[in-house]
Amino acid sequence: MSTLVVPELVPSVTEDCEQLRKAFAGWGTNERLIIDILAHRNAAQRKLIRKTYAETYGEDLLISLDKELSSDFEKAVLMWTLDPAERDAFFANEATRRWTSNNWVLLEIACTRTSQELFLVRQAYHARFKRSLEEDVAYHTTGDFRKLLVPLVSSYRYEGQEVNMTLAKSEAKVLHQKISEKAYNDEDLIRILTTRSKIQLNATLNHYNDEFGNPINKDLKADPKDQFLAALRAAVKCLTYPEKYFEKVLRLAINGLGTDEWALTRVVTTRSEVDMKQIKEEYYRRNSVTLERAISGDTSGDYEAMLLALIIGHGES
Amino acid sequence: MSTLVVPELVPSVTEDCEQLRKAFAGWGTNERLIIDILAHRNAAQRKLIRKTYAETYGEDLLISLDKELSSDFEKAVLMWTLDPAERDAFFANEATRRWTSNNWVLLEIACTRTSQELFLVRQAYHARFKRSLEEDVAYHTTGDFRKLLVPLVSSYRYEGQEVNMTLAKSEAKVLHQKISEKAYNDEDLIRILTTRSKIQLNATLNHYNDEFGNPINKDLKADPKDQFLAALRAAVKCLTYPEKYFEKVLRLAINGLGTDEWALTRVVTTRSEVDMKQIKEEYYRRNSVTLERAISGDTSGDYEAMLLALIIGHGES
Repeated sequence: MSTLVVPELVPSVTEDCEQLRKAFAGWGTNERLIIDILAHRNAAQRKLIRKTYAETYGEDLLISLDKELSSDFEKAVLMWTLDPAERDAFFANEATRRWTSNNWVLLEIACTRTSQELFLVRQAYHARFKRSLEEDVAYHTTGDFRKLLVPLVSSYRYEGQEVNMTLAKSEAKVLHQKISEKAYNDEDLIRILTTRSKIQLNATLNHYNDEFGNPINKDLKADPKDQFLAALRAAVKCLTYPEKYFEKVLRLAINGLGTDEWALTRVVTTRSEVDMKQIKEEYYRRNSVTLERAISGDTSGDYEAMLLALIIGHGES
Repeated sequence: MSTLVVPELVPSVTEDCEQLRKAFAGWGTNERLIIDILAHRNAAQRKLIRKTYAETYGEDLLISLDKELSSDFEKAVLMWTLDPAERDAFFANEATRRWTSNNWVLLEIACTRTSQELFLVRQAYHARFKRSLEEDVAYHTTGDFRKLLVPLVSSYRYEGQEVNMTLAKSEAKVLHQKISEKAYNDEDLIRILTTRSKIQLNATLNHYNDEFGNPINKDLKADPKDQFLAALRAAVKCLTYPEKYFEKVLRLAINGLGTDEWALTRVVTTRSEVDMKQIKEEYYRRNSVTLERAISGDTSGDYEAMLLALIIGHGES
């Protein structure tokens, strides 16, 4: 569930644009006014604001924001203002160009979005980068990672409720056998993870746990230093427990040596309108401190205010 | 270009439905009336007819047609009446379940449709088969064919006009090197064929021809019995000269030992509204006989009449 708070009486889009324009005017910039508006409008409303702003002032709102703001605060506001599919296309492209075996952004986008959302990302990618997402991913990756990532970013998984239990059992067995043989890059193992519906996969992995005594991710931890194994575990987590995956990304971003603001910005801007409530619950359970407090302790100023505005949620504080 | 002829004054959809109902009524069935209507309505009109028919008579038009018609004629009418994406999903599913290394239907659908069309096929596949297309393809294929087919059916190629000539040159070189080494299942060779835009690929293959002296398909004919090489050649043809690919399918269907009606039906129903005019030109150039005459000589009755109605085209006869 979303933590976005949209006021009951939303000002008209014209009014929002005028207020934003006012926030940019004169010597300083009124950052709090920008937060008050943009951090409390949903994706459709932001899209309309961007459209109306461009029509009224002859400049893309993102350009105006870019001129007025700076550093982490600027990045957070820009990422948040983008349309979700455009934003994911942006993150995916960046991840592709700077790809390293411990960069899981592509995997995260491919596995935690719905099939339709992922397709919209691919459309937005065409429009913005004049290439296809899978084309860039295939070009910039190699070996086992390519074998895993290309089908993941190209997937259009079925999303109905049907589960084939016979198949779940037989595929759990295949997974277990391949993992026992340390054949982690096995074609069928990758086929199962990259093509089955999330519900079907969940049944398969539950059966795996019941039948073979361990959750699959425990068995995939045979060599903790192996980056490909880490990627497989991340994929499993994204597909079955996305809130746990995101909790860990936030935890590492906050607890690491120096805060990883870009990871923090990514998770907050991409999840607050989707499942930030569950991520916050998971964060609290795992860290015994609320995400709000953790973010407050690690960030400051307008950047802190922007992130908190996005994650505070329904009447909590 | 399409060879479909829609009358200048199209009867209302209600009228069309009444006429179809009349064609089904009484003892015999009025096959010619069915052809006169359905074979002269475009995809949008047929869709509306099917919808209105179901609303008016409480039965899917496809069910009524199935009751009234039989054999090759029935199959042609049913395939034609389906929405293009549904029809492709049907052919793809059949090809998946009966997959053999010389069945190129999957490859044909993946490589000759536009990116958007292929995506609509994947959506229709979900709706009808409760699984994803790539899931079924991956499950039913193995080895090199899987390596080629899964990314092909999952592709969403960029369709803009941009060509990167530097890339075309470097990738032509990669292709040539891999083919020289007989590394036909090489990852990069498959990556290039399955992810690059058709326009980019065309530039790459032109450069291949200019630089290395042969069209790529000639070099891919090193072992004429190798089915995987044949599949690669078919993919290249579908991506760059679809009308030549379809001409050959038609030629083999007509000239083989006994006509392959199902292949004939597939090509006529899927292409008459798209590029049948080019396919007919190509057919005539290659066989010195018109496609109309060839089909007339090899088919008869209502089936013949249905196919001819779909391919005769603008004022020709």
